[in-house]
Amino acid sequence: MPAQKNPDSNEDALVSRIARKLHFAKSAALPIGVGDDAALWHPTAGYQTVLTCDWFLEGSHFLREKHPADAVGWKCLARAASDIAAMGGKPRCFLLSLALPGELSGKWLDDFLGGLRRASKALRCEPAGGDTTRQDKVLINVTVIGEVRKDRAVLRSGARPDDLLFVSGTLGEADLGLRQLRTQKRVARASNAALRKHLYPEPRMALGYWLAQNRFATAMMDLSDGLSTDLPRLCKASGVGAVIAEGAVPRPSRIPEAQAVRLALDGGDDYELLFTVRPSNVPRFKRSMQKSFPRLAISNIGAITETKKLLLLKKEGVTQEFSSGGWDPFRKK
Amino acid sequence: MPAQKNPDSNEDALVSRIARKLHFAKSAALPIGVGDDAALWHPTAGYQTVLTCDWFLEGSHFLREKHPADAVGWKCLARAASDIAAMGGKPRCFLLSLALPGELSGKWLDDFLGGLRRASKALRCEPAGGDTTRQDKVLINVTVIGEVRKDRAVLRSGARPDDLLFVSGTLGEADLGLRQLRTQKRVARASNAALRKHLYPEPRMALGYWLAQNRFATAMMDLSDGLSTDLPRLCKASGVGAVIAEGAVPRPSRIPEAQAVRLALDGGDDYELLFTVRPSNVPRFKRSMQKSFPRLAISNIGAITETKKLLLLKKEGVTQEFSSGGWDPFRKK
Repeated sequence: MPAQKNPDSNEDALVSRIARKLHFAKSAALPIGVGDDAALWHPTAGYQTVLTCDWFLEGSHFLREKHPADAVGWKCLARAASDIAAMGGKPRCFLLSLALPGELSGKWLDDFLGGLRRASKALRCEPAGGDTTRQDKVLINVTVIGEVRKDRAVLRSGARPDDLLFVSGTLGEADLGLRQLRTQKRVARASNAALRKHLYPEPRMALGYWLAQNRFATAMMDLSDGLSTDLPRLCKASGVGAVIAEGAVPRPSRIPEAQAVRLALDGGDDYELLFTVRPSNVPRFKRSMQKSFPRLAISNIGAITETKKLLLLKKEGVTQEFSSGGWDPFRKK
Repeated sequence: MPAQKNPDSNEDALVSRIARKLHFAKSAALPIGVGDDAALWHPTAGYQTVLTCDWFLEGSHFLREKHPADAVGWKCLARAASDIAAMGGKPRCFLLSLALPGELSGKWLDDFLGGLRRASKALRCEPAGGDTTRQDKVLINVTVIGEVRKDRAVLRSGARPDDLLFVSGTLGEADLGLRQLRTQKRVARASNAALRKHLYPEPRMALGYWLAQNRFATAMMDLSDGLSTDLPRLCKASGVGAVIAEGAVPRPSRIPEAQAVRLALDGGDDYELLFTVRPSNVPRFKRSMQKSFPRLAISNIGAITETKKLLLLKKEGVTQEFSSGGWDPFRKK
């Protein structure tokens, strides 16, 4: 609350430190950032602005005693940028709102800013400003500002009956990594692919942009809460249903099949893209994919239906209604 | 953390409820908002985008047992929009990040959204999206996206020696209101001007825009942490000093003089504008002000100096160094 008296201005010092560590520099597109009342940003002519924000809270989204500070920094920006990929846009800049316990403003903060800076460089998304305050837990909110060429944004609502349904990469790996992290007694390291995907997810920026630019995707979203939670959202927005072949869903290897399937259907935090392609466009889409992304696995996991149901075709030939098992912070406990 | 199983999707229901209560509607400038991966927004040609975000946290910025939910909703948007006014811009849309204890998702949430909606209409700032999650305390982060005509943004760094220093309205009233609120046993009502200013601040949108459009202000910022904390920031950004006449600082009436002066110098949360005007421009500025804002008090509280010091001229003819007494959450306790 206002009105406390104190001559030193630690908040300003903290803001300067953040700006320095993030190697914030003025650019033509971002003439004013950290340090004024607000950031000034030049939008590109012929583009729409894409806006998204994401919570990343200690205890809900990460555990201070198990997640490395550097991974917290990387992931808070990567997951917000993934929403820009899901619209077919490119990230441009971000705002960081950070609330921090006083005792973390040394090494923890430096490591956090190191991870954030790496993500900022990898995603070409510049720091533009933010807000800092003190709290007893680490609270992070990241706003990412991106751009998409006019009339190229891919919405959740564009899927039509008979469109084929695709996902990128492997589903369930990040959740497998989380399970491994939970069994560890100290701060985890990215010692295998699953842990790496949980700690340092790489949003599908190039794929999302390419799908939008080439008008291949009719609907698209990123998988943050798990296929079984996110697919219903896409179907609802489009006013359609879907049928999924369980056997076609790309899943983690080297673990029991039943567990791999559950993780692939319900596991959150993968940040892979879920998108639909018109049947007539599929041959051209597949040929172009092989040229542009020769090493990226894309799986056709099902198709869109007019009937507003979600059906799962099991391997045994049984069909069952697909029920949401992914992550929802407002679930009943 | 991800991976909990539950079939119901309360978060989606909460998002729908927020969108409904805020009367979110698609518009030409904002074709996609709540409900997709990200919001799409059309920037106006010839304008720069202004970006700002602000924490508003239970326990730090408001008290659940004393601040009405409706005032929390109003103020979280108003104070973020004030940063846009301070750049000479107009707010366009906002993103709401809300973390809420489950037991507040009924009447408290409705009242909060009612206040937020009133602010959204008053400020002409549309809801564009956001993020929700569950927490044991109310956490709010608001991002406001505004616009300013190219080359008209007013920065903190434009003040030059001999510029005159002005503030709008009265300083210290919001802090006086906070002190009254603290003595109350239950949720406060805006029963007088000081409480009203604390609970429902009205950022100086029209004044900020007008000062920028007419190129009267050479430097500008909003007073959120108190004159004694904020003025040093403006001076530091501009590489100058300032001299303030204590007697000229507009202060609350009907309270003891010494208390009124302290509140006016150190009180936070006023969201008045602090700005500088070139001496040669002052006569024209004053004439235009009287025409455009006949009922708004503007006080000339001092002048900018080349010497990088902040001096306070006391009524008794004593000069003292001006020391920061405003609010800083990172102060030593």
